[in-house]
Amino acid sequence: MKLKVRCLDLDAGGKTIVILNKNDAEELGVHPLDRVVLTHGKRELTAIVNISELFVKKGEIAIYDEVKRELFVNNKDVINVKPREELLSKKSIKRKINGLRLDEREIKEIVNDVLEKDLNDLEIAAFITALHIHGMSIEEVVALSKAMASGGEKLELNKKMILDKHSLGGIPGDKTTLLLVPIIASAGLTIPKTSSRAVTSPAGTADRTECLCPVSLDIKEMKRVVKKTNGCIVWGGSLNIAPVDDLLIRIEYPLNLDPLYMPSIMSKKKAVGATHLIVDIPTGRGTKVKTFGTAHELAKDFIEIGRRLGIKTRCAVTFGEQPVGNAIGPALEAREALETIGNLKSIDLVDKACSLAGTLLGMVGKGNKTTAMKLLKSGKAEKKLRQIIEEQGGNPKIKPDDIKVGDKRVTIRAKKDGTVMWIKNAELAEIAKLAGAPKDKEAGILLHAKIGSSVKENQPLFTIYAKKLYKLKEAEILARQTEPIIVVKNLSKEMLIKTIEDHDGDRLFFALER
Amino acid sequence: MKLKVRCLDLDAGGKTIVILNKNDAEELGVHPLDRVVLTHGKRELTAIVNISELFVKKGEIAIYDEVKRELFVNNKDVINVKPREELLSKKSIKRKINGLRLDEREIKEIVNDVLEKDLNDLEIAAFITALHIHGMSIEEVVALSKAMASGGEKLELNKKMILDKHSLGGIPGDKTTLLLVPIIASAGLTIPKTSSRAVTSPAGTADRTECLCPVSLDIKEMKRVVKKTNGCIVWGGSLNIAPVDDLLIRIEYPLNLDPLYMPSIMSKKKAVGATHLIVDIPTGRGTKVKTFGTAHELAKDFIEIGRRLGIKTRCAVTFGEQPVGNAIGPALEAREALETIGNLKSIDLVDKACSLAGTLLGMVGKGNKTTAMKLLKSGKAEKKLRQIIEEQGGNPKIKPDDIKVGDKRVTIRAKKDGTVMWIKNAELAEIAKLAGAPKDKEAGILLHAKIGSSVKENQPLFTIYAKKLYKLKEAEILARQTEPIIVVKNLSKEMLIKTIEDHDGDRLFFALER
Repeated sequence: MKLKVRCLDLDAGGKTIVILNKNDAEELGVHPLDRVVLTHGKRELTAIVNISELFVKKGEIAIYDEVKRELFVNNKDVINVKPREELLSKKSIKRKINGLRLDEREIKEIVNDVLEKDLNDLEIAAFITALHIHGMSIEEVVALSKAMASGGEKLELNKKMILDKHSLGGIPGDKTTLLLVPIIASAGLTIPKTSSRAVTSPAGTADRTECLCPVSLDIKEMKRVVKKTNGCIVWGGSLNIAPVDDLLIRIEYPLNLDPLYMPSIMSKKKAVGATHLIVDIPTGRGTKVKTFGTAHELAKDFIEIGRRLGIKTRCAVTFGEQPVGNAIGPALEAREALETIGNLKSIDLVDKACSLAGTLLGMVGKGNKTTAMKLLKSGKAEKKLRQIIEEQGGNPKIKPDDIKVGDKRVTIRAKKDGTVMWIKNAELAEIAKLAGAPKDKEAGILLHAKIGSSVKENQPLFTIYAKKLYKLKEAEILARQTEPIIVVKNLSKEMLIKTIEDHDGDRLFFALER
Repeated sequence: MKLKVRCLDLDAGGKTIVILNKNDAEELGVHPLDRVVLTHGKRELTAIVNISELFVKKGEIAIYDEVKRELFVNNKDVINVKPREELLSKKSIKRKINGLRLDEREIKEIVNDVLEKDLNDLEIAAFITALHIHGMSIEEVVALSKAMASGGEKLELNKKMILDKHSLGGIPGDKTTLLLVPIIASAGLTIPKTSSRAVTSPAGTADRTECLCPVSLDIKEMKRVVKKTNGCIVWGGSLNIAPVDDLLIRIEYPLNLDPLYMPSIMSKKKAVGATHLIVDIPTGRGTKVKTFGTAHELAKDFIEIGRRLGIKTRCAVTFGEQPVGNAIGPALEAREALETIGNLKSIDLVDKACSLAGTLLGMVGKGNKTTAMKLLKSGKAEKKLRQIIEEQGGNPKIKPDDIKVGDKRVTIRAKKDGTVMWIKNAELAEIAKLAGAPKDKEAGILLHAKIGSSVKENQPLFTIYAKKLYKLKEAEILARQTEPIIVVKNLSKEMLIKTIEDHDGDRLFFALER
């Protein structure tokens, strides 16, 4: 069908969208979100259909800027419009919805069509829902990891061994990477670490690291830093590795579903060429993985999928019932990391970083936890961190006190004498976010007591930091409502935890919370 | 957050959409497709979030016409913007995704939030996918039928008995309703029939009826016609009964999923106040329901759900392996219906209409198939149809030849002597659609042979009718490729149907094809 172009002078956010008149759309047999192929001279472009009854006249096609640019057309040009043939990947998605397994070719096609924006958001939403409900076979996860890795940039380091670390996350304040990377790199091993920003948490590793140095490097800069220092801590989002992940997260996030966490992780490790990987599985009440049994199942999957992708993988089940260290929020955490790599301030952070680093060293026959401890205590790890900071563009002489933290503060105190028996991770994260984290880097929480601490009435439990007063107030209200640190006077006499009056049949699914 | 309005002078197709700057969206903690609550003076409105990095500046909010109108704001007005609290229905959808049953209250809320456009398209897509995979309990179907019926107009006729008919469809050329409604109405019984237009078929009952008289009546006009004639055949889409169905179909159609067919049907019957219902289940190869066993299962569900909704329901399993009558396409079918109600031209159409009408008459103690035959043969049914045509605004004296059919024609002939053993419904439908149906009402197919017919070489099998020559050509190409009417010379000697070389594990699901 021939239609006359009308340029809208509007940006569609990177999408190639056209608006057809309702009658023309009927004539073509296309519906909203279907795709049409536009041709003008020798140029061809696939575009997404929107339909209007009045805004666009019959015989006319309204186009957004992206279409104008890519098809190289102007107002009143006449272009040819025809419906696109049905995608094979649409049929594959239907097969997955109906509970069938997909093969490598089908998965490659789906990933490719997501990347090319040929599948619409509804189709991706249906695919994600089906993956969540039916789960995936090991073969499907491996095929997805490979397909996602091959759809973007790759880091080519030409090294025999490339080490890497990943944490499943879920506990606030986990700044382990900021110690682990320098420990490994100072042992002469290569660790090109990519990290994420916070999605629903008060700080991601990229957010914390950004208080020390820039993290938005491209793949060339990353390569240079790693070649010079053996390591790096950069934001994965600026590298264009496994870019299809972001396109899927865009749909997963509003649906609050995350069935692709495994290929999402492994595709990125594959893209940086990892050969040895330690996966941290924080376990316990108040985090994503509640029990040791679940952690064990998950670990088996990671190890097997790693094996099939050529990545030797080990998993560390770590204590996840309270924050790591005492600081939550980008700046407070960066400061604590610097204080700990310098003078071992946080004992649990030291233990976690050295345990994980020691396991990695063991995997490549270069030592153990004691080796890691020595690299830390000797100052070699700190020196390496400062070298990485410098190469990423930060100040290598940065001191903990140089890192600015919020000057609006309020301290929450114990209401009675007793022992801290329970810390609510999710509530602490919520309070830190209300205080402004991660957007306000200076906002967060500093804990003055952790599980097992004895406290007296009125003794400080934690301090909330904020940049803006109104945010501090909101965070304080939530802190007083939820009491995220539970002090118990005499545990053995207080037996009743909660009474349950109704049960609506919740089932345990093996799916990670976001 | 206070933001300054910028009007886009663009229509968003009925949606209330605003565009926020990326930084403001982060500050508010909202993502694309999230909802925000806008307030200006005393007016409040919920809107869908789009996000732009450059097109909208920080501190600005770009609004589509719908927002401008409903919030009553203008350029440079400053409005307050805040994120909307999480919907309960979002949590219910998550529960359904996780395989749990929903209760009546949860279903009511979901239906309401779809109707109010508070749930976004991704959430609806995830809900539909989950319904397709997990299925629904009888209780859920009943609750959905009630909730969907209560969300729109209702027909209040104040009659003790209201009869109705529904067909699951799937075979081309089924014009049974055009005979059944007048038969029932001429027996003095009330039958306020609503019908749909074609979605994927060459003609829906509304399309066929529109060749005889207008069908886009509103609920008041429909009521007047039924009061005067006892019956009507109107398009359901113009009545605003169970309007949520259209909002769901908008998502189901591109996904090619139809898990809500049962509540979709029953909500509409409920909304017109039906007390007695006959459901036609065309069964056989080449239609939606392949086997008698499946038809039986489906019938049990219909009867039980009808019982719980206070609608006495019976099901008719009918022969679905070939078209009903000989005509396919709106005009050709309307003509055949008129010829058959007048002088019994199509034997199978007469049989089907009288069987179904007879069952309905039996359900209310007013006769049987013989009664229906008498009403047809005596001319009473025809007189009633003409009365309905007149009241709906058509010409009551219309003759078959007054209905214009396509003058571009091509006839496909038998390649050998033999017997028609098999007619491919889906291919016939595809050919009729390529010829222009249902948009070109004059386009379609007239069959000259049906299953069991003996044909000689070169004898006409069917004629394709079209309005436009290029459409006729396309239809002819497909007709010659697919051979929709299979003539077999000597069946008992031709034993091999097909060889199967591979099997990819297809599973039979109890879901209707669209």
